[in-house]
Amino acid sequence: MDALGHHVLLELYGCDAFVLNDTKKIKDILTEAALLANARIVETAFHRFSPHGVSGVVIIAESHLSVHTWPEYEYAAIDIFTCGEDIRADLACNHIISKFRAKSSAMVEMKRGVIPTANEYAGAVTQREEVLACKR
Amino acid sequence: MDALGHHVLLELYGCDAFVLNDTKKIKDILTEAALLANARIVETAFHRFSPHGVSGVVIIAESHLSVHTWPEYEYAAIDIFTCGEDIRADLACNHIISKFRAKSSAMVEMKRGVIPTANEYAGAVTQREEVLACKR
Repeated sequence: MDALGHHVLLELYGCDAFVLNDTKKIKDILTEAALLANARIVETAFHRFSPHGVSGVVIIAESHLSVHTWPEYEYAAIDIFTCGEDIRADLACNHIISKFRAKSSAMVEMKRGVIPTANEYAGAVTQREEVLACKR
Repeated sequence: MDALGHHVLLELYGCDAFVLNDTKKIKDILTEAALLANARIVETAFHRFSPHGVSGVVIIAESHLSVHTWPEYEYAAIDIFTCGEDIRADLACNHIISKFRAKSSAMVEMKRGVIPTANEYAGAVTQREEVLACKR
């Protein structure tokens, strides 16, 4: 079933806590990930919290990448929401997993904006497409 | 099972196409939604695409709200990612559904950052907590 968007929710465990607390490094990594995915960056917003943790978003022409980090748990939540056929979200994921030095990751990919025909409309819900869990 | 974050993925169908193409209105609605949820806003970034469509993010101390609109399909994708016990994501959802004049909506709520014990670690994946589909 066709969808307007594809949304990857990436859970990263056992990351490098120093990376997860470094706003500039995280912004660089997310920006690089967007470019590797073949996306066009239009806005960025990043914020460092006290005493620790970073939140940030890269708005791309094809939707967005977001990150929230909990250095105290060596955990980061990444979202890669894209539309279009030319986007390589997988390359963005691999780059972030590598640069965050995640020991373990889990991924859920969802279809967003499944525009139904009239008959399908009443039951329209997002579809969970795939669940992958991998140990590194 | 406890989680660091809760992530609501909201699909809105049959929305008012004029609202979905109005960057200022969408920014106002998302900002109001964040405040209704009892969140503290720290950054915002919105972008209008040509010929139509808006993307935007409100970074809050408790994570983020995001929106992507496809006025041509009367569809909007909303994400409300929060942490903490004092956040009322339900109030934010209701506000956005109402202001976007959505005829139909679907919601998925996910736990993010389920920090496992050692025994649970190998199988750690995000949990789909609840799926609700409602007709308005």
